[in-house]
Amino acid sequence: MNHKPETPLLDRVRLPADLKDIEDRDMPRLASELRDEMIDAVSVTGGHLGAGLGVVELTLAIHKVFDTPKDRLIFDVGHQCYPHKILTGRRDRIRTLRQEDGLSGFTRRAESEYDPFGAAHSSTSISAGLGMAVANALEDGDRNVISVIGDGAMSAGMAYEALNNAGALDARLIVILNDNDMSIAPPTGAMSAYLARLASGRTYMGMREFGKKLTAYLGKAVDRAITRAVEHARGYVTGGTLFEEMGFYHIGPIDGHSFDHLLPVLRNVRDNAQGPVLIHVVTQKGKGYAPAEAAADKYHGVSKFDVITGAQAKAPPNAPSYTKVFADALITEAAHDDKIVGITAAMPSGTGLDKFLEVYPDRCFDVGIAEQHAVTFAAGMASEGYKPFAAIYSTFLQRAYDQVVHDVAIQGLPVRFPIDRAGYVGADGPTHAGSFDTTYLATLPGFVVMAAADEAELKHMVCTAAAYGEGPISFRYPRGEGVGVDLPERGTVLEIGKGRMIKEGGKIAILSFGTRLAECMLAAEDLDAAGLPATVADARFAKPLDHDLIRQLARHHEVLITVEEGSVGGFGSHVMQFLSHEGLLDAGLKFRPLILPDYFMEQAKPEAMYAHAGLDRRGIVETAFRALGAEDLIATIRA
Amino acid sequence: MNHKPETPLLDRVRLPADLKDIEDRDMPRLASELRDEMIDAVSVTGGHLGAGLGVVELTLAIHKVFDTPKDRLIFDVGHQCYPHKILTGRRDRIRTLRQEDGLSGFTRRAESEYDPFGAAHSSTSISAGLGMAVANALEDGDRNVISVIGDGAMSAGMAYEALNNAGALDARLIVILNDNDMSIAPPTGAMSAYLARLASGRTYMGMREFGKKLTAYLGKAVDRAITRAVEHARGYVTGGTLFEEMGFYHIGPIDGHSFDHLLPVLRNVRDNAQGPVLIHVVTQKGKGYAPAEAAADKYHGVSKFDVITGAQAKAPPNAPSYTKVFADALITEAAHDDKIVGITAAMPSGTGLDKFLEVYPDRCFDVGIAEQHAVTFAAGMASEGYKPFAAIYSTFLQRAYDQVVHDVAIQGLPVRFPIDRAGYVGADGPTHAGSFDTTYLATLPGFVVMAAADEAELKHMVCTAAAYGEGPISFRYPRGEGVGVDLPERGTVLEIGKGRMIKEGGKIAILSFGTRLAECMLAAEDLDAAGLPATVADARFAKPLDHDLIRQLARHHEVLITVEEGSVGGFGSHVMQFLSHEGLLDAGLKFRPLILPDYFMEQAKPEAMYAHAGLDRRGIVETAFRALGAEDLIATIRA
Repeated sequence: MNHKPETPLLDRVRLPADLKDIEDRDMPRLASELRDEMIDAVSVTGGHLGAGLGVVELTLAIHKVFDTPKDRLIFDVGHQCYPHKILTGRRDRIRTLRQEDGLSGFTRRAESEYDPFGAAHSSTSISAGLGMAVANALEDGDRNVISVIGDGAMSAGMAYEALNNAGALDARLIVILNDNDMSIAPPTGAMSAYLARLASGRTYMGMREFGKKLTAYLGKAVDRAITRAVEHARGYVTGGTLFEEMGFYHIGPIDGHSFDHLLPVLRNVRDNAQGPVLIHVVTQKGKGYAPAEAAADKYHGVSKFDVITGAQAKAPPNAPSYTKVFADALITEAAHDDKIVGITAAMPSGTGLDKFLEVYPDRCFDVGIAEQHAVTFAAGMASEGYKPFAAIYSTFLQRAYDQVVHDVAIQGLPVRFPIDRAGYVGADGPTHAGSFDTTYLATLPGFVVMAAADEAELKHMVCTAAAYGEGPISFRYPRGEGVGVDLPERGTVLEIGKGRMIKEGGKIAILSFGTRLAECMLAAEDLDAAGLPATVADARFAKPLDHDLIRQLARHHEVLITVEEGSVGGFGSHVMQFLSHEGLLDAGLKFRPLILPDYFMEQAKPEAMYAHAGLDRRGIVETAFRALGAEDLIATIRA
Repeated sequence: MNHKPETPLLDRVRLPADLKDIEDRDMPRLASELRDEMIDAVSVTGGHLGAGLGVVELTLAIHKVFDTPKDRLIFDVGHQCYPHKILTGRRDRIRTLRQEDGLSGFTRRAESEYDPFGAAHSSTSISAGLGMAVANALEDGDRNVISVIGDGAMSAGMAYEALNNAGALDARLIVILNDNDMSIAPPTGAMSAYLARLASGRTYMGMREFGKKLTAYLGKAVDRAITRAVEHARGYVTGGTLFEEMGFYHIGPIDGHSFDHLLPVLRNVRDNAQGPVLIHVVTQKGKGYAPAEAAADKYHGVSKFDVITGAQAKAPPNAPSYTKVFADALITEAAHDDKIVGITAAMPSGTGLDKFLEVYPDRCFDVGIAEQHAVTFAAGMASEGYKPFAAIYSTFLQRAYDQVVHDVAIQGLPVRFPIDRAGYVGADGPTHAGSFDTTYLATLPGFVVMAAADEAELKHMVCTAAAYGEGPISFRYPRGEGVGVDLPERGTVLEIGKGRMIKEGGKIAILSFGTRLAECMLAAEDLDAAGLPATVADARFAKPLDHDLIRQLARHHEVLITVEEGSVGGFGSHVMQFLSHEGLLDAGLKFRPLILPDYFMEQAKPEAMYAHAGLDRRGIVETAFRALGAEDLIATIRA
């Protein structure tokens, strides 16, 4: 049990306006209290720790210098916003972070006027900020707009598109590049190396400093001549940093943990900036908390932990995670086939490809936060006969949708898409839920779209995807642990477009796509107990569909329920399209496709989310009873 | 009638290998012949002219210096590939460009081994090329990989992501930046301005040249001291161009119409390059054809034309294009509401926003080829109370899908999406078809998704979108002319989620979503004639659905056919989802959702494409007859 930290200064800050009463010299002490408060809160809730610790001083400095919420402060990704939430009227709820009905783990418009633009995915803040800055200019306003973006997020093309446009529009936008040389993993890419060179001072000094160096070297004798020469020649030399080339006034690098640096620079920019400004701030992820500073991932995302030791309380798993099963299976397949390569967009540990990278360092590519490039890069490798597994979360693959359509599907290239975090994800909430992948992939001609019912099925699907070479193929699996089934040494190749019968019953058929199969089996138990034995089948494929299996289910049952953890337009819609044109609905089959509900569900425990969605045992049984007109039986369902 | 040009040199070149037998000094004459051949071909077929004319010398030089198809040559977008097609065994079919069963207007893997990676959307070539270069490195190959990308395409984030990754991977990849200071429209953005500075030589010269300038200015006296000083100081100054900062060896700018520049540089790179190289080549779009050089758009895309005069043969339109109707309507609405702004991603004329820009220059934003940024920029403006219309083609909006989900839909921001080129587009083929938008948008919670049945409906939908402020709203409309209905002065606000009954009939109901309504009416005529009078309704909304209308259609008809120009998972699937859970299918309604077929359809005349798809009068009538078990009536359908 932790004792709540003493925070006399922080207690005086209810809203950012209260920071005006804090002396500059007291800011370091306030930062220390804010850091303690945040550590204590996250020790209770779990969540993103390292990122917030790195921006304590920066967050305080921005709120002290600028006039939020009139001035717009946009955090990129938003996982570094806990100190911001504490300072903006949400301190009393900070220990509800990421809980059901609690604060979001990200910025969120609906939560506070101090969150003018919500986030969670990376690299959106400059675009949003530019939109606000242009709106401000259109109405001759005097707002400041400040976008805070990490160096990792700068590898995404979207950030570049926004810089490119901002530099041309010349709107008054302040971009703070929070350079901690860390995204979730150490960042990759030329931009990252460039920022490191800037931060180390080895390349950037500007022409004035260059002139000084030159003068010092040559001695005072030729001082004036040199000065004139440099002035004359500077027009011929590249003008400055990459950001200056993009049209930004570039300040920095400055120390992001020093109020002596932050406050005067921010005040100067506030009072004098005209067009777009980029302030390069160097910070340390996990700053001020020894266990985080010492950890390789800087405590990027943590469970509840002990404040003194930093030890995280992780419950022992009952079964290996799907992520781990995927990684192990891919390593196994790669041992048999040297054409297999792995591709990740800055999520090596999240996707499990870090393990693959250890075993096959030459065959694994972390391209940075760059899903668009990742997919077309994979397509390029596939066009040369390689077998790329582009492992991208369901929700992040949205960012490469056109590449999936245009570079992979239209060309029929055999890129493999392992889709982790399919379905609800719990505490990360709606921005991270994998709701739409079956819909947006299965609608594409020539795609093979699979979902694993359990971790053994996942192994089979990795093996199947490796063996299949006719075109694009995807397989989805959820966050979290498997169900605990026995795992084969190696997966076997599944027949494309064939599902499997799990259990034969009577009037009711349940056709599952994905890991809700276990819940379908529980529902079948209930139905059996109610005297309505149910057939249960695992579709395995949303595309191509198992027509024989579906025909059989439709012809020999009164009710057909499909179950999937996905949005409208996905597996159930494909089944309906088939049934309708085959005339299999014409005879009065009671068809009930269960899908995710049509709203963005806020964070909660997964079980609660499934219950809300009606995708649990009870929801399935109720659907069956209602379809049969046996509403009276609903009262008999076990709690 | 044109006379075919005389091409004695070109006649000797059947494949690129034949270029080895052409002397360097004869290359300009060959270029002239190739240019004549291309102009003549496009005068017959119509197509992309200006881009190809600009790269005649570059294409010849690449094929002469490199060893295609073993070396991989990837054209970005691919609309500049006509000279390449002529040189790579497709000259005999060059006058079938963009026709049914003819050559594609873009590069296409299935068409030739000289097209190692197909394209049509912009900015994919560096990613694909890097994938190939890495594949080559993995197998210790000695292939060259050359990606040719225009300056306009460099505004897309995807190109940056690929540069960023290539600079870090250090693979042997040759990027040729074809800088003609023109995409479809004059390019916008800071990168474009930067390239112009490079091309004009005002900024780029490198440290060596800088040293020379300095020396010349100071005189020989301090020559050696200066040289040493410069060497000493260069480490402190930004190293070079933006591309060098990204890890590329940067050559240029060089003259892309001079073989004296192109051949030695390409040979040098071929023989000496180690890591990634970027060659900055300056060309002129439309080069060598006076009418193209004189035109503002450099004959980007042309109809058939007269070679002598350049006059294009455009059939007089029967009705205004949907694009024009949209633009006019938006201008009308903007006069009533100064919060309306227009946003385009480098397609001002294609979307009609060029007209809006003329009237409201301060309220129209061309952000460059940058759909991701365009959408989140729009979201930023919407968050400040503006009413952004982000006008993006159906197929290009795929590139901003995550921004639509994450920044617009999850936040419920009222961004308006006018979706041009919805459905089949004819000669541009599958890469430009707007097949998936209803599926990928209507699956998102809170979205309002409309389709215009005709150009008057489009006016109403512009007006409706302007008035609606509860969340995101989209409206789709096809390429080409309207159907010729009377246009109101100004649109009226439609009730959200309400369709309209067009015609009441008997057993058969047809529910249309979009411009296939006219064809539904023709089908209804046939059905009436067959003694099976049909009800026809216009859904207007795929989301929210008009539940009352659908209930009525389902309850009072034996057959319900939905008709839409979209892929599986869209309007028909939403109708099915509703019908099934309402139990409206249980009584044996014969439901038949007509959608686009499940393959990527090659270019053809739109009418032929609709016939293939079964989305024409005949297809609808056949579906109705079959549903009723009246297959015998099919023989009676008029041709």
